Amino acid sequence: MAISTPTVAELCRSAKDASRVLARLDAATKDAALLAIASALVERTPEILEANRRDLEAGRESGLSDALMDRLALDERRVAAMAEGARQIAALPDPVGEVIDGMRLPNGLDVRRVRVPLGVVAVVYEARPNVTIDAAALALKSGNAIVLRGSSSARHSNAVVADVAREAAEDAGLPAGALTLVAGGGREELAELATQDGLVDLIIPRGGEGLKAALSAVATVPVIYAASGNCHVYVDASADLDAALDIVVNAKTQRPGVCNAAETLLVHADVAADFLPRAAAALRERDVVLHGDERVRAHVDAVAATDEDWAAEYLSLDLAVGVVDSLDDAVAHIRRWGSGHTEAIVTRDLAASRRFVRSLDSAAVMVNASTRFTDGSQFGFGAEIGISTQKLHARGPMGLTELTSSTWVVTGDGHVRG
Amino acid sequence: MAISTPTVAELCRSAKDASRVLARLDAATKDAALLAIASALVERTPEILEANRRDLEAGRESGLSDALMDRLALDERRVAAMAEGARQIAALPDPVGEVIDGMRLPNGLDVRRVRVPLGVVAVVYEARPNVTIDAAALALKSGNAIVLRGSSSARHSNAVVADVAREAAEDAGLPAGALTLVAGGGREELAELATQDGLVDLIIPRGGEGLKAALSAVATVPVIYAASGNCHVYVDASADLDAALDIVVNAKTQRPGVCNAAETLLVHADVAADFLPRAAAALRERDVVLHGDERVRAHVDAVAATDEDWAAEYLSLDLAVGVVDSLDDAVAHIRRWGSGHTEAIVTRDLAASRRFVRSLDSAAVMVNASTRFTDGSQFGFGAEIGISTQKLHARGPMGLTELTSSTWVVTGDGHVRG
Repeated sequence: MAISTPTVAELCRSAKDASRVLARLDAATKDAALLAIASALVERTPEILEANRRDLEAGRESGLSDALMDRLALDERRVAAMAEGARQIAALPDPVGEVIDGMRLPNGLDVRRVRVPLGVVAVVYEARPNVTIDAAALALKSGNAIVLRGSSSARHSNAVVADVAREAAEDAGLPAGALTLVAGGGREELAELATQDGLVDLIIPRGGEGLKAALSAVATVPVIYAASGNCHVYVDASADLDAALDIVVNAKTQRPGVCNAAETLLVHADVAADFLPRAAAALRERDVVLHGDERVRAHVDAVAATDEDWAAEYLSLDLAVGVVDSLDDAVAHIRRWGSGHTEAIVTRDLAASRRFVRSLDSAAVMVNASTRFTDGSQFGFGAEIGISTQKLHARGPMGLTELTSSTWVVTGDGHVRG
Repeated sequence: MAISTPTVAELCRSAKDASRVLARLDAATKDAALLAIASALVERTPEILEANRRDLEAGRESGLSDALMDRLALDERRVAAMAEGARQIAALPDPVGEVIDGMRLPNGLDVRRVRVPLGVVAVVYEARPNVTIDAAALALKSGNAIVLRGSSSARHSNAVVADVAREAAEDAGLPAGALTLVAGGGREELAELATQDGLVDLIIPRGGEGLKAALSAVATVPVIYAASGNCHVYVDASADLDAALDIVVNAKTQRPGVCNAAETLLVHADVAADFLPRAAAALRERDVVLHGDERVRAHVDAVAATDEDWAAEYLSLDLAVGVVDSLDDAVAHIRRWGSGHTEAIVTRDLAASRRFVRSLDSAAVMVNASTRFTDGSQFGFGAEIGISTQKLHARGPMGLTELTSSTWVVTGDGHVRG
């Protein structure tokens, strides 16, 4: 007798039903489920690694890049880290039921705004199997059902990791449907998932521009896009140049492949002659390729920068570099070319720092700190489900509270409106 | 020499430029501008009423309904109320610059989340010219530029009201472009406005389902839809039936044409025989037509209710009425048919009130109070720009803070990530 595979719509309907139970679960049950997931991951590591070997083999055969192979690969340490991530999220306070604010109205009505889960959160991701657990733990802790759709390159790993987590969660008292992995990794499943109006409350894509474009072309349910990070470091005329050097090197090279790495350096003309040669030497030592404008190239060797460089999110050891005549010119450059993620100023001038912060329109602004600090775990959110560069609902690192909404609860003694 | 009318895109570009100035304006300048708008409206009332007469005349000729004519009509009292609304919004605290939260990280970095304007807010509305001022005052107070697009039936009124406000605002120091009325009221202008990605940060439609459908078909910029209000009152077995009667009558009849009016009454079977005849008598006295299920019709005369009645947002003196066997059945009915706006329970049982509040998924839940209290001015927000029934960004009445986003500001002493 053939067992038919449930459709995406059926999976989402089951997730929606589960979400109604999850929304009312106490924190203790949710936390116990996350701890059970963590233990099960550790216990069943051999199964997970075996599945991962099959994905790696298929990846080698299909010629996946070294970078993708690295993101796909699991070992005991990485599985243990996934488990540890779930434990850390269990230890965070439960956002559900938090009274955000409230008041007593002049007529005596008591009003409170209470945090509630969104319902069903779908996460679409590429390559890295650890996202399965990060996303599931954040969603479940915040009382949401989670629907996962990984990439086909990680399908064996994701299937086993999701199965291990689902079984542990259900044994610990979470309802069936609370954690679902959509089997197919194709574009049809994506389109079906992205059009489950009334069942899916939010989709979060975690992946490259191709994934986002595919999603935005079809989605009718709400989506929060983690936009790209074309992050800037501006070295002001008053900057401590030693600090500036540390920050530029850190922002560019500490982990160049992530969205909060710096992609453009802007240097005030007054300090260009002093700073640029030092910066160029330190960056070249770390294999950074500079793409400079004409004024930069008067001081240091660099590839000639074009508009494409100002617009680029390199995610590599490349850095666009420009000289500006003022803080306002730096702001104008960032407003024109930036992606609204994170910008940093290095300055000793308090007025300059205030002006920089207030003139920009980015999710995060750093004063005398590396752009790399825009990060959920740095901010103490536990794992993050993404960094939002949009303005509605969530901006910056998204943790538990960004997976919630609120309800107004109004209590009276038979109050009517006059 | 012909002066060419600026395109919608040009108007939005100018609004975007203005928004950058507005974002940094101090509260005193913004408040002075709102007070200047209020004074100008009062001073120039004759011009406004003259323009309104032209719209009313055109409305009569084209056969506008009495209800629409009433919404369109201005008189001295209504203009004075618009001015008073602007003054009240001026008196509210400035949301911009509010530190929402913040912390010192273990590494010594100081992190704060600061409230910032969205940028450019577009409001699309029908008939009522007072929305021009409500929307403009809320947007400007929260540091946003506002782009207004009214309906063609109010074009003369809106043009003069917007002109009066714009001139007063600019004289008081707001930048050109801060307040813009899109001249044409056609679908092309709507489509152009709704696709200004990067210029318009949010569109809020204020109008009927036709407007929302037109917008959702074309919009690529973020939209917050004020969904319809199919609001329920559930009379529990333990209800104080006198209070229940007052609440049902108030929720249905105090202002039947608005989204927080009740559309369905659910009565627990234990009190149906006692409550329904009293409720029916009181409601009929106020010309309410009952649409009841079979069990209701065993107690009182009513039109037979169909699924269309359970789904309806009547906005009229009609009420769907059903008998349920339990609170859980009431919740199941509301979950199936409701629109997620506002539901009320009348009960003396604390456990029942808790269960009702926690089982529903609506923007507001009333305990022993009329559904009519879901309202920005009742909640003390000043005028509201709409009531959101979506879960992301804003839920319930939208005031000043719902027209803002936030920025993370991180300050260090040369901090880099290890």
